[in-house]
Amino acid sequence: MIGKDPIRDFGEKKLIEMIIKKSESFQTDDKNFLRSHIGDDAGIVAIGNKYLVLSSDMLIEKHHFPKEMTYYQRGFKSVTSNLSDIAGMGAYPIGILISLALPKNLCINEFNDLMNGILEACSFYNSPLIGGDTNEGDELVISGTGIGVSDDENVLMQYGFKNGDLIAISGEIGLSSIGFEILNQGLEKTKKRLIDEGLSSKFIDKSVSKILSPIAKVNEGLLLKESNMITSATDITDGLSAELHQLHNSSNKYSKKSENLGFLIYEDKIPSIAIIKKIAIFLDKDYQDLIFNFGEDFELLFTINSNKFNEFKDYFKDEEYYIIGEVNQSNKIQLSLSNGEIEDIKLKGYEHFK
Amino acid sequence: MIGKDPIRDFGEKKLIEMIIKKSESFQTDDKNFLRSHIGDDAGIVAIGNKYLVLSSDMLIEKHHFPKEMTYYQRGFKSVTSNLSDIAGMGAYPIGILISLALPKNLCINEFNDLMNGILEACSFYNSPLIGGDTNEGDELVISGTGIGVSDDENVLMQYGFKNGDLIAISGEIGLSSIGFEILNQGLEKTKKRLIDEGLSSKFIDKSVSKILSPIAKVNEGLLLKESNMITSATDITDGLSAELHQLHNSSNKYSKKSENLGFLIYEDKIPSIAIIKKIAIFLDKDYQDLIFNFGEDFELLFTINSNKFNEFKDYFKDEEYYIIGEVNQSNKIQLSLSNGEIEDIKLKGYEHFK
Repeated sequence: MIGKDPIRDFGEKKLIEMIIKKSESFQTDDKNFLRSHIGDDAGIVAIGNKYLVLSSDMLIEKHHFPKEMTYYQRGFKSVTSNLSDIAGMGAYPIGILISLALPKNLCINEFNDLMNGILEACSFYNSPLIGGDTNEGDELVISGTGIGVSDDENVLMQYGFKNGDLIAISGEIGLSSIGFEILNQGLEKTKKRLIDEGLSSKFIDKSVSKILSPIAKVNEGLLLKESNMITSATDITDGLSAELHQLHNSSNKYSKKSENLGFLIYEDKIPSIAIIKKIAIFLDKDYQDLIFNFGEDFELLFTINSNKFNEFKDYFKDEEYYIIGEVNQSNKIQLSLSNGEIEDIKLKGYEHFK
Repeated sequence: MIGKDPIRDFGEKKLIEMIIKKSESFQTDDKNFLRSHIGDDAGIVAIGNKYLVLSSDMLIEKHHFPKEMTYYQRGFKSVTSNLSDIAGMGAYPIGILISLALPKNLCINEFNDLMNGILEACSFYNSPLIGGDTNEGDELVISGTGIGVSDDENVLMQYGFKNGDLIAISGEIGLSSIGFEILNQGLEKTKKRLIDEGLSSKFIDKSVSKILSPIAKVNEGLLLKESNMITSATDITDGLSAELHQLHNSSNKYSKKSENLGFLIYEDKIPSIAIIKKIAIFLDKDYQDLIFNFGEDFELLFTINSNKFNEFKDYFKDEEYYIIGEVNQSNKIQLSLSNGEIEDIKLKGYEHFK
């Protein structure tokens, strides 16, 4: 690593690793209220008899907001994105702080729409806006911090799963990437083309809605946490592949015993896999990329204690979820294809800077 | 107000007023843990038997970092700036979250220096980095959220002062604006010119250090809060004039009885006023602008219960502070000049967008 190299040569994951490593050497000893490893979905801090769950997320015009997204949708999404991390830990959101960098040529109507989106989302998640900052910037930046609480320390962490546990997601994945591609290729004409090819307009609309108006699974996260049947969880913001790798790394780093744990995902268990494969061809995309390597799904990825699965099915019967695989002892993250072949799910992720 | 007008025609204060007004109408009724009015230095949230104090601050390359500032100093300042709000409420800082927008041509050395500055500051303030986010952006943006706690609800608010209370600051003001101007006009040549004019190099160095390496008055804020002699406080980040107006507005809005409270500041009580007046001439600046209308002092502005002032002098004798004026019933914010004339301290502030 040479000092004068630009950070674009390193990629976001590498930079975050550097930050984590650096911050560990700087941590003071007397901070015994700190209960988390930096790098999990959120920081956990013991305050009196409660546990505070804190997470920051920054959205930037060019990278996080398709141009078709209204300012209302941008505002709403910024709250969703911050509270999704709180949901991923199964904490109860109590508020959010939002700082804005606003280009000076933004119209007052657009500003109003943006604020309405932020505040409607706060109201939707019952999580008030409790602070923030506004500044002039070259581009729109919405930087938030979500605040959650938990009555006990057993929030959902990214590690803790065991051999045999079931891997589940809280909703369909890949839709946001499909929605993004449809917008990218021109909404009206692409939609028309896909419908002409026999694809359901409902699925197309759902995909576009998923990218423009995503919702954080806050109540689902709370239910999962309260069940005591969940052995790990995270929200899917960086793509399913990146999140599986993240759980795997966390387990290797923080779980008490290493058991060569690995994941096997079954392609045929991915919801709507047939439609996704079909639409991928028409959009000229790799279907695995659509499913695994695009962020912004805002679904929860979690593992269920295999001994409690019958109980879980009853407990979670009114909620949407899909079992997509299982924890094994392969020490690998793999995909079982429809044809029976097994291949590695590589970490491609969703990296800036590179 | 016409929807298509760009926000630069409105100014930051107006936008914040709009946000506050909007957010009030959106607040849900069951959030009885919320103890603050949005618009104070920080949000206050009751968690169990403790009170959480939360504040966000966003720093943007072009507006908050003179080009002479090293990346280490930028990182350190971002933490200072966030914890200054916590200091202004007299809360105990327990951690900070920092999100970064990084231009992709930033060198890895610069990134390292930035992170060292952030982490050294966390260590200095004994307030660990507990989370954050990194992204690629067109310009450097450092967006933080400072987390503080208080054992009781009586944190320092921006209102509560009474007729006769003394107005104080925790250190010299105007130095950061002088330091900024010296950098702006060329450090070496301006310093030489000022020394040739008979100004002390120590004062010049102190001013430059104040703009490049500001420190938040965290311990002072805690001491003030614990004294029970302080009737209001805020940190000075938007200029003394803007902060005086802010206290005045908060008092009118939130104090139980309106008593036409006003402030009278004595020019001759401003520390180093003679030097500031002299240096203002050589820098071709209005000395009042240097004192009142530039932010980034990171000192505390506070009011002392007049009945407890003798006690306060003893309690605070090891700390730096200056009494610069008093609370009266003029309903005005005024300056008593050296020549005995009294004039209004207008709100010029430190506004972006305009």
